[in-house]
Amino acid sequence: MKELRFAQIGSGLMGKAYAPALAQIPMWYWPPAAMPRRALMVDIDEKSARDNAARYGYDRWAVGWQAAVEDPDVDVVLILVPNNLHKDIVLAAAAAGKHVCCEKPLAMDAREAKEMYDAVEKAGVRHQTAFNWRFCPAVQTAKKMVADGALGRIYDFRGWWLADWPMDPDIPLTWRFQKALAGTGSLGDIGSHVIDLGRFLVGEISEVCGLADTYIKERTIVSAFAPPAGAVVGSNLKKGPVDVDDNAAFIMRFESGAYGFIEATHFSAGRKNSFGFELHGEKGTLYFDWLRMNELQYYDRADPVDREGFRTIVMGPMHPYGEAFWPVQGYGLGYTETKILQLNDFIQAIAANARPQTDFYDGWKTLQVVDAVVKSIDDHGWVRVDSIK
Amino acid sequence: MKELRFAQIGSGLMGKAYAPALAQIPMWYWPPAAMPRRALMVDIDEKSARDNAARYGYDRWAVGWQAAVEDPDVDVVLILVPNNLHKDIVLAAAAAGKHVCCEKPLAMDAREAKEMYDAVEKAGVRHQTAFNWRFCPAVQTAKKMVADGALGRIYDFRGWWLADWPMDPDIPLTWRFQKALAGTGSLGDIGSHVIDLGRFLVGEISEVCGLADTYIKERTIVSAFAPPAGAVVGSNLKKGPVDVDDNAAFIMRFESGAYGFIEATHFSAGRKNSFGFELHGEKGTLYFDWLRMNELQYYDRADPVDREGFRTIVMGPMHPYGEAFWPVQGYGLGYTETKILQLNDFIQAIAANARPQTDFYDGWKTLQVVDAVVKSIDDHGWVRVDSIK
Amino acid sequence: MKELRFAQIGSGLMGKAYAPALAQIPMWYWPPAAMPRRALMVDIDEKSARDNAARYGYDRWAVGWQAAVEDPDVDVVLILVPNNLHKDIVLAAAAAGKHVCCEKPLAMDAREAKEMYDAVEKAGVRHQTAFNWRFCPAVQTAKKMVADGALGRIYDFRGWWLADWPMDPDIPLTWRFQKALAGTGSLGDIGSHVIDLGRFLVGEISEVCGLADTYIKERTIVSAFAPPAGAVVGSNLKKGPVDVDDNAAFIMRFESGAYGFIEATHFSAGRKNSFGFELHGEKGTLYFDWLRMNELQYYDRADPVDREGFRTIVMGPMHPYGEAFWPVQGYGLGYTETKILQLNDFIQAIAANARPQTDFYDGWKTLQVVDAVVKSIDDHGWVRVDSIK
Amino acid sequence: MKELRFAQIGSGLMGKAYAPALAQIPMWYWPPAAMPRRALMVDIDEKSARDNAARYGYDRWAVGWQAAVEDPDVDVVLILVPNNLHKDIVLAAAAAGKHVCCEKPLAMDAREAKEMYDAVEKAGVRHQTAFNWRFCPAVQTAKKMVADGALGRIYDFRGWWLADWPMDPDIPLTWRFQKALAGTGSLGDIGSHVIDLGRFLVGEISEVCGLADTYIKERTIVSAFAPPAGAVVGSNLKKGPVDVDDNAAFIMRFESGAYGFIEATHFSAGRKNSFGFELHGEKGTLYFDWLRMNELQYYDRADPVDREGFRTIVMGPMHPYGEAFWPVQGYGLGYTETKILQLNDFIQAIAANARPQTDFYDGWKTLQVVDAVVKSIDDHGWVRVDSIK
Repeated sequence: MKELRFAQIGSGLMGKAYAPALAQIPMWYWPPAAMPRRALMVDIDEKSARDNAARYGYDRWAVGWQAAVEDPDVDVVLILVPNNLHKDIVLAAAAAGKHVCCEKPLAMDAREAKEMYDAVEKAGVRHQTAFNWRFCPAVQTAKKMVADGALGRIYDFRGWWLADWPMDPDIPLTWRFQKALAGTGSLGDIGSHVIDLGRFLVGEISEVCGLADTYIKERTIVSAFAPPAGAVVGSNLKKGPVDVDDNAAFIMRFESGAYGFIEATHFSAGRKNSFGFELHGEKGTLYFDWLRMNELQYYDRADPVDREGFRTIVMGPMHPYGEAFWPVQGYGLGYTETKILQLNDFIQAIAANARPQTDFYDGWKTLQVVDAVVKSIDDHGWVRVDSIK
Repeated sequence: MKELRFAQIGSGLMGKAYAPALAQIPMWYWPPAAMPRRALMVDIDEKSARDNAARYGYDRWAVGWQAAVEDPDVDVVLILVPNNLHKDIVLAAAAAGKHVCCEKPLAMDAREAKEMYDAVEKAGVRHQTAFNWRFCPAVQTAKKMVADGALGRIYDFRGWWLADWPMDPDIPLTWRFQKALAGTGSLGDIGSHVIDLGRFLVGEISEVCGLADTYIKERTIVSAFAPPAGAVVGSNLKKGPVDVDDNAAFIMRFESGAYGFIEATHFSAGRKNSFGFELHGEKGTLYFDWLRMNELQYYDRADPVDREGFRTIVMGPMHPYGEAFWPVQGYGLGYTETKILQLNDFIQAIAANARPQTDFYDGWKTLQVVDAVVKSIDDHGWVRVDSIK
Repeated sequence: MKELRFAQIGSGLMGKAYAPALAQIPMWYWPPAAMPRRALMVDIDEKSARDNAARYGYDRWAVGWQAAVEDPDVDVVLILVPNNLHKDIVLAAAAAGKHVCCEKPLAMDAREAKEMYDAVEKAGVRHQTAFNWRFCPAVQTAKKMVADGALGRIYDFRGWWLADWPMDPDIPLTWRFQKALAGTGSLGDIGSHVIDLGRFLVGEISEVCGLADTYIKERTIVSAFAPPAGAVVGSNLKKGPVDVDDNAAFIMRFESGAYGFIEATHFSAGRKNSFGFELHGEKGTLYFDWLRMNELQYYDRADPVDREGFRTIVMGPMHPYGEAFWPVQGYGLGYTETKILQLNDFIQAIAANARPQTDFYDGWKTLQVVDAVVKSIDDHGWVRVDSIK
Repeated sequence: MKELRFAQIGSGLMGKAYAPALAQIPMWYWPPAAMPRRALMVDIDEKSARDNAARYGYDRWAVGWQAAVEDPDVDVVLILVPNNLHKDIVLAAAAAGKHVCCEKPLAMDAREAKEMYDAVEKAGVRHQTAFNWRFCPAVQTAKKMVADGALGRIYDFRGWWLADWPMDPDIPLTWRFQKALAGTGSLGDIGSHVIDLGRFLVGEISEVCGLADTYIKERTIVSAFAPPAGAVVGSNLKKGPVDVDDNAAFIMRFESGAYGFIEATHFSAGRKNSFGFELHGEKGTLYFDWLRMNELQYYDRADPVDREGFRTIVMGPMHPYGEAFWPVQGYGLGYTETKILQLNDFIQAIAANARPQTDFYDGWKTLQVVDAVVKSIDDHGWVRVDSIK
């Protein structure tokens, strides 16, 4: 069996997700398209790198991302570091002929993303933007139903990511709250997943008009990498400015003529990682919320008039990817399984020399929308997405 | 006990709601602020008028709205007819010194509404715009909590009215689908209730940017009054154009700085009269959907971190207006009770010579927002509400 | 139009429900089968009687239930008083040729109920046991679906009524907590509605085995009639023993072979008037909870395997009784409408000289089950329902 | 770091769950109490054993369970085979000084279970019954709240496991449907988890009275091990009798005086793996359903009377075991994580030479209740649990 040797760069929040996924892929997909090997753990210092290599089952460790790019015994590079570092690593990895999987948002802006996309395409390596949330079986079921025409013409899409952990003023000034490291705030961090969802389900977005706010304007300074999202530190430390958005919201038109609304906010008290959509079509409606990720709500206008209503479909082996997991509906998957599915999709693509479901093109197109929203806020009006270069 | 003599003009969908409310007011509010008497039923022909008077317990009947205005034994006029007739009746009733309760939207546009508002104020009569939905105890509980500071600063408001009965192409061309009779479509018909909700909970709206569509562009011609909403007729009849919106959606800013999003659509399959809001604040969140009108969802950030979560508050005697109805939580109120509460509020206002909760000022301000949304669609950009005269 | 003259005896919790229903019946059902007239209000003292007559729109008033029975200008007697008084009033009313509607449980025990049933049948008057909850359109929809075979063979029925207002130790010792006035506690008060539901949906119950507890063993003494359910009084008053059950639960077999479980408890914190059922059948499942009385959950095994799930059916004009109310699904009915439907069913039965949906037979059969449960607790074992005489 | 070498016997439904758990334990719990090593995969034939060893990352493979017991390089034996084989393997493993983890129900009946419990205790090895479902963080949160007194005195427990996959008559006659291989049907298979939940949350059960049915009385014969649960085969094959229960239900008393009801049915259409409980206490209520395993419903009677309601607590890092997984509430865990937690609990117990949370004592006590239910059905009456030897 062909082996694919992975180097993982970074071990923050996302760093916890990849090793469990790589370890499990052959267990759920047997035989795997290629056998993933955890070859090299790269971190910012020797202690972390050594420790995380042992913890996550990597053969070797190294310090500094260049090590992953230069290592001849690495086939795939996983880029799990702040957004401002993505471009350099991708360009170097592509030049070295490595396949690359990069966390989202793919880059600081659309221009960077396009440069990266061109580079990997030119280098002929395989590339993936880590839009793992769309691999959720309920989202894939929605996609399949839309593609099958179950909804007919789509009228509108409402997408959202509602979170609340940054409402705590003691959450420190990690890279996610700094424009120079993250590009945007809630818009790129969580909004980009919703934009990806909209593109996935309805198609390209043509025009947007939005708004945004920053509610907590300064936070305690800590190092860029630590502590992880959600961690709280003492408040007697030095503070620095938050220069990204805490919330962003916009209306939009899709190329199909459908309209939409997306809300990405870090200030919706009690909405813990509520990521979802509602899709109204000519023949029916779909509704999904990540908080109940094993369910999809479906309304079919063709049901008898006195017996119609939203169905709560419980995910199981008859749904996309379901055959890989438990044979009974309702056993329940979690976040980790979306990473298994994302990475397996990439492994299958590499093995088949094909495009994975979410490549750098998607990373780029999503950032075009992000940039258009930013511009629409600056301009206080509608902005066409194709005006973003 | 002082008596108030009501004349009811119109007996369509809304016409069914007022008599049950008037009959019940003294039963729930005893003694009532004034005893409502169903004095005069006015309809478009003798047969309907006579029949509806008997059915709804009115003392007398008449044909043509002028009869209500001219009748010296009428104190209050209920205007339950298509929007294009509101202004003439209101002006005449005010001139005749009658108190007036008018269905919403108050007028064809903000200009008309302002004229009507000025007329009733000048005449010194009491006036009510029938925003009955906000009298729902759960909505009033939300208002009370906002006023008490339970949510702290409000960050944003998302309001919606999602319906689907007009998706049926066999629904005829009633007055609701004609600009000359209704002014707007979903925006004024159902959106006006949502705008009222936003104003009620968050305050005045300063700026909007929206979009709208018409999906079914022609319908079968029938008389303006009949059949009622939801009725379906045969399809081999003559058709006429639908020249109002089937959906409207907009983002907005409140004067407070909060942002918002409202969606009013008649084309959300399966969403049967889903009218609601989500309100994110500094200290908590509220969520309401009419489909579960006896519940209010509340999240309190002050709860212990491991025991916090959205509470489903079940309405009962401890909530606004609750003491009037059942002594046990969860007995359940329905649509009719909102009309009881709306009318009782008006009767109390008349008796106390005070302003009711929702008067023509609210009707006017709501239409200003409606007109601003229409203009923002025409202009393809943001429109300030105070630019609407 | 034929008129039916009603006398109402009692004006406690249930006393608030009947007049709004009688007043509205012609408004929703036009023309009514017979025109209900609120003729005589009977209460325990002159002040209450006079006041309630004015409040509820009755022509006349009287003191003492005998007045209703003896009045030649009364056609129907509504018995809304504590259980221990039911029998005497019914027997006298039947002897006087009055139709009788009696609140539930029909009597103190099955023996009394049978005597009452025999008396009204012999007298040839119409009789109704006030099982209003089953008139809820969602429950009627369930019944219709069961009758139509939508569920196929029924496997089991789980019914419940979960309440919590009596958990407050300051709730006084009203008649509901005294065996001599009420017969049983939660079992007869709320459990009888659930038993009625089981009989309505699945058929007669053949055998039961149950248990019960009394958690609060004494309460403050007040007069039997006042204050109403839910009222709280000071705690420095004299106390008396609670000698009825605070909860009761039992398993059972239906004559059809299906099994069941019923829980009726006043000590389920937070469950505010949760009254419902789940019905598993060969072809599907139904679920209902009164707290969401305008919804019925339905699962159809015939749906495509990847699109099946529980449907939330929203009640509307296409469901039983729905055509009488609002033309749009989801406008929402409340408790009052079940009383309208219950009383209209009785009026129609009287007018047609037919049996209403829930007559004294149902009152008697339900009490047979109640008595069997009591005996099964005393005997600590299974008891056949037909062993109760 | 100390290493623990695991032998896995069996690779059916449960066989898929253990290797992903073992592989992930150090990733989530670092450093682990002991490093689990997948040492030996045992299966029923060479091909399966070899293939599964490769798939699940085991060092070696063997045929026949004796190999695991006899292997000197194995520390822990995982017994994932039909119930009728549990006893022999456990006794042999204990004699060989291996720690044993055994799937549930622990044995064919309580007598066998007691013998196994005595054997492992005498041998001084560590033992675990695989009641993984109680390791769900929401269930552990419930336990913690009960232990902290958040509910006060517990009044009653309602537990359930509702499934529907066996309703398909084409599901073959696997070992789960045969008394000689499984002992009981739904009662032991899914009911045992609910009994464990009742014991975990409320304490020992003293008395039960139940009923059961078999709806599909014969199924197609296949080999005992294959295909897995949920698989469907053609119907033209030979059939054999189903001699276990398709559903079982019982009422009960706990030693504390609380009462309870448990329903375990394979014939509840649409209820896909609905496993849960509702717990009513003096101070509040808890509700859980596995289908929403990342949520716990909690009602607190101490909340202000107009703001109380069931809270939907979303699991996160502040809840039991939460610190090991994602730092944000609502990322979501699935079934696999319960196996991680179950096995980590066992590894910690072995390392600390302490009792794990669910050992063979729990396996035995649960089967005592199962046997008491069986006897109560046979005897048609209440049976004391301590009468089962």
